[in-house]
Amino acid sequence: MVFLFLETDLSSHAFDQAIALEMQSDGSFAGHTSVAYANMVGPFGGISAAQMMNAVLLHPDRLGEPVSLTINFAAALAHGPFQVQARAARTNRSTQHWIIEVMQGGEAVLTGTAFTALRRETWSLDEEAMPKVAPPQQVPHGEGPVPAEWVKRYDMRPIAGAMPQVWDGGGDSSLTQLWVRDNPPRALDFASLTALADVFFPRVFVRRATLVPVGTVTMTVYFHADSAQLRNSGSSYLLAQARAQAFRNGYFDHTAQLWNGAGVLLATTHQVVYYKS
Amino acid sequence: MVFLFLETDLSSHAFDQAIALEMQSDGSFAGHTSVAYANMVGPFGGISAAQMMNAVLLHPDRLGEPVSLTINFAAALAHGPFQVQARAARTNRSTQHWIIEVMQGGEAVLTGTAFTALRRETWSLDEEAMPKVAPPQQVPHGEGPVPAEWVKRYDMRPIAGAMPQVWDGGGDSSLTQLWVRDNPPRALDFASLTALADVFFPRVFVRRATLVPVGTVTMTVYFHADSAQLRNSGSSYLLAQARAQAFRNGYFDHTAQLWNGAGVLLATTHQVVYYKS
Repeated sequence: MVFLFLETDLSSHAFDQAIALEMQSDGSFAGHTSVAYANMVGPFGGISAAQMMNAVLLHPDRLGEPVSLTINFAAALAHGPFQVQARAARTNRSTQHWIIEVMQGGEAVLTGTAFTALRRETWSLDEEAMPKVAPPQQVPHGEGPVPAEWVKRYDMRPIAGAMPQVWDGGGDSSLTQLWVRDNPPRALDFASLTALADVFFPRVFVRRATLVPVGTVTMTVYFHADSAQLRNSGSSYLLAQARAQAFRNGYFDHTAQLWNGAGVLLATTHQVVYYKS
Repeated sequence: MVFLFLETDLSSHAFDQAIALEMQSDGSFAGHTSVAYANMVGPFGGISAAQMMNAVLLHPDRLGEPVSLTINFAAALAHGPFQVQARAARTNRSTQHWIIEVMQGGEAVLTGTAFTALRRETWSLDEEAMPKVAPPQQVPHGEGPVPAEWVKRYDMRPIAGAMPQVWDGGGDSSLTQLWVRDNPPRALDFASLTALADVFFPRVFVRRATLVPVGTVTMTVYFHADSAQLRNSGSSYLLAQARAQAFRNGYFDHTAQLWNGAGVLLATTHQVVYYKS
């Protein structure tokens, strides 16, 4: 008889508890917001995105693995239960298109689409190389001035573009680079990578060193890695990089990349964030 | 009495004919694929995206202007009529979230979401500056080896990363920069900018100098410009730039920007493209 001692008991990780969904008789899923991943107003957007991704991952009709996911934050979730409706709008021979809605009190609070596919090995190449940075062991933990609960669920080690310590309006670039992983460590999968894609502090904070009300309105994640590449990443740190392209009349975008420690580009992601000023 | 002589008669432009939709009694729109914007298989993806954007733009329930649009190409449209269903899933005080589906023969061929908002003037800044390139008048028209009809609807002047003239597998970068506008010229608006966001030849052609079967599966457009900034762009050339970040096991992404001649970043856009090899 062989006993397997796992480094982490997945079933007890706060992330797994947070994304847990229960299938209902009508094919929808019941979920619940997580105190562990609470943000200033409503939950951390990344955990909502991961819950929606999980509805597709758990769906009995699913074909293949996630290639892209778009989530729109239509309203702040109230703390409590919600319902996820994931519908395969189109199923082809090796690809599938999903429409996802999260409902609370009969109203849509999140909308989204996902694309899943059976992938096969082809000529491959990473054009966006991982920047050369100090290894995570040499980068101290970041201390954010924002006391949001979800921030404690991540081990973040900022290399460039950390949260400003002085709010003097003095920034000159929105670039952020950080090492990041779940806290405590957890083996990477599509759901956790989805949440990690939203781990960046708002670019307007970094660029302007000014605290203004903000909120992500839409986020897209492109999964370059398949499940085997995610498994190979284990629970090691990812290098995450984000940069805004434009701040314009209430909305800014960012474009971001996540590499594993071996330099494999696992995901690229983009979002639009509302800001007030 | 004043007579207005317009430079271009919009109503007769092939683009306006292509995106024309007729509202049906059930609130959906009837459209038709356009021979003028035909691609190798099915229509040019940009024109399908513009048709979906137009359903939101024409919808009587619309609040505000487009800020983001995600379109998923679930199946090739057959030449003929189609139906667009655009539904406001959530309407807030100054923002709105749309779910869009294009149906043909009772099946979903395109899915998507859009976000519209009432914008107001705030502190603004373009972080992604327009690259310094020769003006459009000094750049000759590009000659593509792909005889797709839609290519004739655009005046494209490649600066870098044009379609390879020799398919020898010898590329070393996927970066493309080109000046582009409608042909004949047409005043820029949200629908035409949506189509222009899909004007790039597949990155795998540029990076590998190898012709392989390809097809966009998902595209997202972030509109930084409002309608006034689009109007100010008139019918002048846009500088369009695209670059892949990763090619991996059948799918590659690209990230792209479109500036007007004055250097204002009008839109950023991303897509995932299937490739065979």
